[in-house]
Amino acid sequence: MNFIGIDLGATKIKAGIISENGKIIDKITTDTPAGGEVHAVVNSIGMLVDRLLKTDGITARYIKDIDAEMPDIKGIGIGIPGTCNDEGLVYYAPNLFWNNVSLSELLKEKINIPVFIENDATMAAIGEATCGIAKGVSDCMLITLGTGIGSGIIINNDVYSGSHGIGGEIGHMIVGENFYDCNCGNNGCLETFSSATALIKYTKRLLKDADNNLIYGSRLFKKINGDMDLLDGKLIFDCAKKGDLIAAEAVDRLVKYLAIGIGNIINILDPEMIIIGGGISKAGDYLIDKLNREIPQNIWLKSMNLTKIVRASLGNDAGIIGSAMHAGSKLDI
Amino acid sequence: MNFIGIDLGATKIKAGIISENGKIIDKITTDTPAGGEVHAVVNSIGMLVDRLLKTDGITARYIKDIDAEMPDIKGIGIGIPGTCNDEGLVYYAPNLFWNNVSLSELLKEKINIPVFIENDATMAAIGEATCGIAKGVSDCMLITLGTGIGSGIIINNDVYSGSHGIGGEIGHMIVGENFYDCNCGNNGCLETFSSATALIKYTKRLLKDADNNLIYGSRLFKKINGDMDLLDGKLIFDCAKKGDLIAAEAVDRLVKYLAIGIGNIINILDPEMIIIGGGISKAGDYLIDKLNREIPQNIWLKSMNLTKIVRASLGNDAGIIGSAMHAGSKLDI
Repeated sequence: MNFIGIDLGATKIKAGIISENGKIIDKITTDTPAGGEVHAVVNSIGMLVDRLLKTDGITARYIKDIDAEMPDIKGIGIGIPGTCNDEGLVYYAPNLFWNNVSLSELLKEKINIPVFIENDATMAAIGEATCGIAKGVSDCMLITLGTGIGSGIIINNDVYSGSHGIGGEIGHMIVGENFYDCNCGNNGCLETFSSATALIKYTKRLLKDADNNLIYGSRLFKKINGDMDLLDGKLIFDCAKKGDLIAAEAVDRLVKYLAIGIGNIINILDPEMIIIGGGISKAGDYLIDKLNREIPQNIWLKSMNLTKIVRASLGNDAGIIGSAMHAGSKLDI
Repeated sequence: MNFIGIDLGATKIKAGIISENGKIIDKITTDTPAGGEVHAVVNSIGMLVDRLLKTDGITARYIKDIDAEMPDIKGIGIGIPGTCNDEGLVYYAPNLFWNNVSLSELLKEKINIPVFIENDATMAAIGEATCGIAKGVSDCMLITLGTGIGSGIIINNDVYSGSHGIGGEIGHMIVGENFYDCNCGNNGCLETFSSATALIKYTKRLLKDADNNLIYGSRLFKKINGDMDLLDGKLIFDCAKKGDLIAAEAVDRLVKYLAIGIGNIINILDPEMIIIGGGISKAGDYLIDKLNREIPQNIWLKSMNLTKIVRASLGNDAGIIGSAMHAGSKLDI
């Protein structure tokens, strides 16, 4: 028995046929239509399903007429970059510019397979908890560190998205005061300290404020040849690993506040495991080791530093695997 | 069918016989033995059970021999001011000076009725969720605002204490930087901003720093006749309600950070209801109204300000009622 998992991102849509055991049978990717125009996105999803089902040449809108061609796919899960309810109504997906989009309803007109929609970080958490590093862990949280910060929460082996589907938004946990405001309008949100965007902003500030000796001795400054627009999270982490003082200071600030945010989560939810995913998690053991040194300071009961902090194991595939597994779980098959 | 609920506090131990519907049949209170000496506390609990069962004159240690006298009590729940596991091992209860106390084991030697132990705020949350303002609410959190700040979490109609029994410690959520450190050793913990202790500390600071005009016009200063040791949370709230500028500034700061803490919880857990209990909740609608004005600013998705903020309804009885209901739930009867 197989499912389709789809990871709808602001720049790419990934889709795959996933076996009931979480193995990827086939996967494809396409660009997200510009500006996230709803009908174009719905068409793209239809086309991806069409292509995965090897029904090339038959446009997605006709898939509902060719049930016989796809006996094996029992359900489709779609992870969306925003918040939604159980009926597949997307309340808000800022990077797609979506407000109150009935994604499930729109897809029903194209695809005759049950569709289940959830937040993308939640889908990745399901992936890790069913087929990845958190397999067998009943209470865990996956934190995605990218341009923003999100999370997916698993409690008692089940997804927990809150009473109104808007939980897990740990990027907007206020942990201090910061020199710039968050897109959400508040000041001090975790993602203004510990996302890739925040890392780049703070590094720019350090480079601007540093004295000439520090600047001209900086490996990071040489790498970008003074062009601040060339800064990215990976480069800053790479330079920090190699001892660049400015990059290291920026990374240490990211870690300090991330460790506060994770400490807050441990004090509140005491999960068995916290899984670090997203682009920044590619910094690997360097980041995990720093977090493991910093987090225990922020826990109330320091003698019970028991929550495991680990790196996500499924990489970019967590979303499609988790989405497929979610569809299977919703269908209870 | 009845249960006994016990609320073990640092200064008082309350105990009651509670019906399966949460009605208080009888209740009594005694002082907590000085210094929280373990065997004295265990004896006091035994004596309270003894007295509730009208076995006066027969010391608690013999209760196990008089089963026939107490056919109606199926279980005993005890809320403790600290963290513990499902086996009744109290890891840490700072105000009793307890570390790793096997409370269930010690009580088994005295009382021949099944005993179930949980954190006191969790027991109060169970009380409100089964018999109080949150009856019928599947996902809620009770926040106790007193000398410290604690919480009890209900998810999917069930207690959630974390993977290791140390969750719900929202008083140690770091929400900013503060002018004094928390007892836990960290700086910026919510309870250093929004507990009664924090309110008193900050008011003292304001009174010390205020100029003479403000001081001598202050109703609060007159009430305490200049003696800072007479400050307490109730007095500060009462004076704030009556327009005292210093008291109002202190209360507003408490509310500002409490609203950040509650906003963080909504962003992470999105509960249906947050119940405000503990001594400070006696400020009533004045506090709840201020919170309801302030919290929406701290929520990520401001258009979905759906979590209800309410005042606890069971008052000081929430602990004994919740403890009894917890025992009933654990016995699955």
